[in-house]
Amino acid sequence: MHGAPQADCHKVGLITSYKPLDISAFLYKDSRKQTGKGHREMKIDINCDMGESFGRYKLGLDEEVIKLISSANVGCGYHGGDPHVMRKTVDMAKQHGVGVGAHPGLPDLLGFGRREMKVTAEEMKDYFIYQVGALKAFVEIAGMKLQHVKIHGALDTMARADEELTRAMCEATREISPNLVWLAHSGSRAVEIAQSIGLKVIQEFYADRAYNADKTLVSRKVPGAVLKDSQQISARIKQLIEAGTVTALDGQTLELEYHSICVHGDTPGALEIIRTIRGIMADHNIAIKPMAELV
Amino acid sequence: MHGAPQADCHKVGLITSYKPLDISAFLYKDSRKQTGKGHREMKIDINCDMGESFGRYKLGLDEEVIKLISSANVGCGYHGGDPHVMRKTVDMAKQHGVGVGAHPGLPDLLGFGRREMKVTAEEMKDYFIYQVGALKAFVEIAGMKLQHVKIHGALDTMARADEELTRAMCEATREISPNLVWLAHSGSRAVEIAQSIGLKVIQEFYADRAYNADKTLVSRKVPGAVLKDSQQISARIKQLIEAGTVTALDGQTLELEYHSICVHGDTPGALEIIRTIRGIMADHNIAIKPMAELV
Amino acid sequence: MHGAPQADCHKVGLITSYKPLDISAFLYKDSRKQTGKGHREMKIDINCDMGESFGRYKLGLDEEVIKLISSANVGCGYHGGDPHVMRKTVDMAKQHGVGVGAHPGLPDLLGFGRREMKVTAEEMKDYFIYQVGALKAFVEIAGMKLQHVKIHGALDTMARADEELTRAMCEATREISPNLVWLAHSGSRAVEIAQSIGLKVIQEFYADRAYNADKTLVSRKVPGAVLKDSQQISARIKQLIEAGTVTALDGQTLELEYHSICVHGDTPGALEIIRTIRGIMADHNIAIKPMAELV
Amino acid sequence: MHGAPQADCHKVGLITSYKPLDISAFLYKDSRKQTGKGHREMKIDINCDMGESFGRYKLGLDEEVIKLISSANVGCGYHGGDPHVMRKTVDMAKQHGVGVGAHPGLPDLLGFGRREMKVTAEEMKDYFIYQVGALKAFVEIAGMKLQHVKIHGALDTMARADEELTRAMCEATREISPNLVWLAHSGSRAVEIAQSIGLKVIQEFYADRAYNADKTLVSRKVPGAVLKDSQQISARIKQLIEAGTVTALDGQTLELEYHSICVHGDTPGALEIIRTIRGIMADHNIAIKPMAELV
Repeated sequence: MHGAPQADCHKVGLITSYKPLDISAFLYKDSRKQTGKGHREMKIDINCDMGESFGRYKLGLDEEVIKLISSANVGCGYHGGDPHVMRKTVDMAKQHGVGVGAHPGLPDLLGFGRREMKVTAEEMKDYFIYQVGALKAFVEIAGMKLQHVKIHGALDTMARADEELTRAMCEATREISPNLVWLAHSGSRAVEIAQSIGLKVIQEFYADRAYNADKTLVSRKVPGAVLKDSQQISARIKQLIEAGTVTALDGQTLELEYHSICVHGDTPGALEIIRTIRGIMADHNIAIKPMAELV
Repeated sequence: MHGAPQADCHKVGLITSYKPLDISAFLYKDSRKQTGKGHREMKIDINCDMGESFGRYKLGLDEEVIKLISSANVGCGYHGGDPHVMRKTVDMAKQHGVGVGAHPGLPDLLGFGRREMKVTAEEMKDYFIYQVGALKAFVEIAGMKLQHVKIHGALDTMARADEELTRAMCEATREISPNLVWLAHSGSRAVEIAQSIGLKVIQEFYADRAYNADKTLVSRKVPGAVLKDSQQISARIKQLIEAGTVTALDGQTLELEYHSICVHGDTPGALEIIRTIRGIMADHNIAIKPMAELV
Repeated sequence: MHGAPQADCHKVGLITSYKPLDISAFLYKDSRKQTGKGHREMKIDINCDMGESFGRYKLGLDEEVIKLISSANVGCGYHGGDPHVMRKTVDMAKQHGVGVGAHPGLPDLLGFGRREMKVTAEEMKDYFIYQVGALKAFVEIAGMKLQHVKIHGALDTMARADEELTRAMCEATREISPNLVWLAHSGSRAVEIAQSIGLKVIQEFYADRAYNADKTLVSRKVPGAVLKDSQQISARIKQLIEAGTVTALDGQTLELEYHSICVHGDTPGALEIIRTIRGIMADHNIAIKPMAELV
Repeated sequence: MHGAPQADCHKVGLITSYKPLDISAFLYKDSRKQTGKGHREMKIDINCDMGESFGRYKLGLDEEVIKLISSANVGCGYHGGDPHVMRKTVDMAKQHGVGVGAHPGLPDLLGFGRREMKVTAEEMKDYFIYQVGALKAFVEIAGMKLQHVKIHGALDTMARADEELTRAMCEATREISPNLVWLAHSGSRAVEIAQSIGLKVIQEFYADRAYNADKTLVSRKVPGAVLKDSQQISARIKQLIEAGTVTALDGQTLELEYHSICVHGDTPGALEIIRTIRGIMADHNIAIKPMAELV
């Protein structure tokens, strides 16, 4: 599909996937939406971490970013976020038609959930239910449904190294609601584990992070890991939606499945980057929609 | 009803109330349950705070107490309790047919939620949704429904002094689910506020605490505030279910509405006291049932 | 002194006080510093809260403000601040010749120590020793001496209402070291209590807060309580150092003792305001010095 | 020395060590204490973790144990302990002539500091200064000197795996005070690192924990890792003080240096075990003394 000669084909790639277990649902969905003119509706999600402020401490440009994205990953109070922030973030999301997901983290506010901790799978499951359950209550009171779950910070590193832990988090998500979407790095093992236990999965591309050849993100400690130049990011996004690929740090071309673009909202240039991505999507007639409409 | 000449009447008092807004529902319910022999089923709830351990710290004899009560007020992690304790407590409650309620507190683990804090009604509402929402997720994953809400520690003192705060907590409860029962001190203002916004209410009698003439509990700082002698407690319970009254510290006889007896599980004599209460109930043919069956 | 006909006299007011118990020490000190020309050295302190960032959360423009002040009130981890922030703030203070004080708060990070809590005097004393002791270790490792203590947030409100609590905090300070300076609102009861138990006291004027007629600060909830206009603040500072007075919100002229000006560093205009104050001091030949040099 | 024919020799082993870098100081000290009769005073320390209660949560039998030991490792509020508990524990230690050490842990109250966390050496250093500094203030207010530092829980595991981290903790200790004693597992790498940077070191033997052949403790997950039988513990203590050895789980006989016996106070049989150890010491004319008297 990626790099296929047919002009329309790569666009299908936007909202489908290469793995057999994923693609059928998408194609079916898309075919129902085909108009008489043979036109397919193309959609993509833009997700961003939000609601990670805490008490007196403000983080990110949430009020501005929320207008530009389609799905929000909302902090649940462990690594960031607090009940008041959660309610306000959920209300903002509702106002702007943004899908709300839980963004659970490790119980380490001091370390912003970015330090690996040796928690057991059972502990992690319980931390998940606590955090996601709390956010779910806010979302339902606002008259919405919780859309998805995306793990935060060091949980990502831990998930890559520990399948039992990943399975525990996926199972906790399914126990909370089988309708929750699991949002994860494109091509990661977590995608397969989530799918294997029956969760719907959305794979994401990181707009502003360099990739290793194995499709993992380059560590923040490596120079060049975090992209800040909107032109460079723009070129990457174009390559992604036109060819379905990203160029890894070592020069390799990687094929990536994706239905969502992950952006960040805590840098001064964040808004410009997101607007640039939206512009590219508009140029390609791709609608930006909450991920619940893509699964 | 209390002190009425008809022998059967005071027993109705057990599961009904004197306020017009409450009694009709009960009588209706009871009349449906009447058998041909004119026998009415009499029921009462026994509630106890539970799940207030935290990490390595163990509090209370939960594993033993859970077998003797019908409703558990489960800590939600702010004043006590943690996700792991919550799951285990919910699982124990399920195993023993005990109704599960949320027991939210102030964000003060160091003070066990027993120190008044100047939180706004809006903050309190959000703390409620966070804590009750988190517990609700555990309860639903266990295949049960969250039964009730009972406020913890200093929230009780604060609720007596601040109607706006009480209303905020009641509204948060109703927003989470209109089916949640509000469990509160018999005769307290919180009972009226909860009823006024449409919550079902269960009023409780404290088995082991002395009463002031205004139906409030005598402060723990006053000698004699906490009863530890099971014979004394036994006499009080008998007076309550036979005459519907309690004798205040100043000697006055107070009429009390109640559908639940509150007991405590963190003292060595706790188990004996609860067993004594159960024995009295058995002698009076009163069934001990989760409060959801009494509203 | 204020409004006295002698041109030099009001300048003495800067570093002395009107209360008999305070003035002697100052005059003695000053007289020793008199030169042959009868010139007195005039000094004032500028203090600012600092080191209230926490983990990933940044608060205030500490790196810039530290260059403009003479004493830093450093958060100790309860309401804000963390060990890493404490070390960095102490190191910055050392680099810029700034005196370091402890800024202890309530154990309420979520509320930034701004919500009153019903803590006992004994609890408060222990919270003080814990926080001030921790900061003292960082200060001594940096080769300095801890200079002063200033209470944070709601502790101020609580201190005004509860003499026993204020005394407990003063006693804890003296127990930690009898050389610590107690920094408090000019004319407050805490000043008297601290002096009565033998602590050295520096009284402060709030550059950017409106005053009530009783010398307390106007509540932040009242419009006009927080001044942001540097011209208005400039006029107030001039009035203070030239006439020794401040005009209260109700128009009354209040005489104030002061040896330190309190500024804030968490607003965009903060730096301009502090620079303006420094300019006024330079125009009046008043040296800006850490408060340890003023007692 | 161990197993040597000379009757007096093994006793020297109690308060000296086999490593060249340690023994000279001891022998010198002891020779000064020799009486005319050629009698040497023999001393050992018994240390126990204490002050790990938190708020409403009580841990251990501190009030009883404190009477039976000579050095207390006091929690500093991160993994356990709080300011109020710290003050009370320090006061108890003073009353009973017990030396006070700091027992710093990871910032993980929920996990009681028993879960490894990926903290940097710089973070750890700051956590150390914060915790030890806070306890030092309580100790000095009580008119004592802080005696030693012993790391808690997962820090032990982390120290074994990460020399940079261990060095950071030792350096922080030395920066706080070069007189602090570093208390560590006999034969561990931490002993060498602490000595290499100039800290005085006391090595400890765990009375109730099984040993691996490399002198590390057998993991608690392995059956038999924790000894609870006082007769078994008694036999081990006798072997230690008579032969200077311990028998590892695999049957090997290990020579161990030690000046302190570590006991635990949070089990029902704890008091009996400690009394048994004291009895053995009395039988061997070994005085139980705070470790400050042994270095």
